[in-house]
Amino acid sequence: MKGTVLYRTRQAGRTRQQILRAAMDIASAEGLEGLSIGRLASDMKMSKTGIFSHFGSKRELQLATVEAAKQVFLERIVEPALTEPRGSLRLAAMLYKWLEYVEKIVFRGGCFFAAASAEFDSRPGAVRNQIALHTKAWLVGLEDEIRFAASNGQFRSSVDAAQLAFELHAYVQEANWAFKLFNDKSAFERARRAIARSISEASSESVRKIVNPRE
Amino acid sequence: MKGTVLYRTRQAGRTRQQILRAAMDIASAEGLEGLSIGRLASDMKMSKTGIFSHFGSKRELQLATVEAAKQVFLERIVEPALTEPRGSLRLAAMLYKWLEYVEKIVFRGGCFFAAASAEFDSRPGAVRNQIALHTKAWLVGLEDEIRFAASNGQFRSSVDAAQLAFELHAYVQEANWAFKLFNDKSAFERARRAIARSISEASSESVRKIVNPRE
Repeated sequence: MKGTVLYRTRQAGRTRQQILRAAMDIASAEGLEGLSIGRLASDMKMSKTGIFSHFGSKRELQLATVEAAKQVFLERIVEPALTEPRGSLRLAAMLYKWLEYVEKIVFRGGCFFAAASAEFDSRPGAVRNQIALHTKAWLVGLEDEIRFAASNGQFRSSVDAAQLAFELHAYVQEANWAFKLFNDKSAFERARRAIARSISEASSESVRKIVNPRE
Repeated sequence: MKGTVLYRTRQAGRTRQQILRAAMDIASAEGLEGLSIGRLASDMKMSKTGIFSHFGSKRELQLATVEAAKQVFLERIVEPALTEPRGSLRLAAMLYKWLEYVEKIVFRGGCFFAAASAEFDSRPGAVRNQIALHTKAWLVGLEDEIRFAASNGQFRSSVDAAQLAFELHAYVQEANWAFKLFNDKSAFERARRAIARSISEASSESVRKIVNPRE
């Protein structure tokens, strides 16, 4: 009996994951408001009741989709970046992994959070709050690495962490935007060049001398 | 008789403008897909037939809304910038006027084209094509001023126009994004600082000497 219950629970967990995978892809391209239990049921060849047994309402489905997308972001971007030493190297890894996740089309609609934040920025409520919370945490994460780099001599101590984080974050969002709208792959190269220049300009004299002894 | 027809045509033109004004505001905040003849009729206290007499379908309404938003963009941003001399001054005016239009909340949802492009980038068709066309023209306009500045000694001749346009465009889009999502007014100041730094770095030695003789 216990085995059967466990099997059913595992099976339900897998189905839930499959529904969320489809939901993230639809939401990244057509918006979280485009998610409906009916649409998912049709896409996944399940009954509406089947979907409904996992998510009791559209709002619940939207919130679960945002949390699932956060999980993908953590696995694809944050966790690999955490293997780099703190400061400028981890900062660069965070940005390059983020670009890679857009370039490799993990989601059909590009960066899930870029799409979701543009869609929900004028729609107050729980979904908007979760999107803003996760997005802010990522921006603060970038700032933290810049501050760390400035405090231990990798970056100049005069670097304005919030300003630099704003600019670096802007380059990746712009690449995502240009790639999606113009199908312009060169946008990734432009973002990488802008990131490399920004990090080089922020670097302390001693780091610059090691990287480019002729400077 | 002629006078009455003219009056009716003018009246119809005014009503059409009023419908489009409401449509741009809704679309900037809730998306072009959120536009429906029923929604507009209710917002404007008109009959559905009244709206329908101006726009025969949702698609037609969406396309007319995009064209109306382009007109607002021209009046608010492009035309004032055209009064500046070509090159670095016009480039700066284009960017600062664009920031001002977001900061002054011309549309409830921020920059109309930022919202519309994020919404339609994965929806092939005529609406997406118009959004991409207008947005591309703006990017190319920025590039043109950079090339002009580089060709007549305002900017260094080695400046990469497409790269610089990418970065400048990114700062304004990022400010629009941060303002809408976090209600963060400091994002405008960050964008202005980034723009000023970029233009200063692109400037030729002779211009830099005039602007900052001690450099």
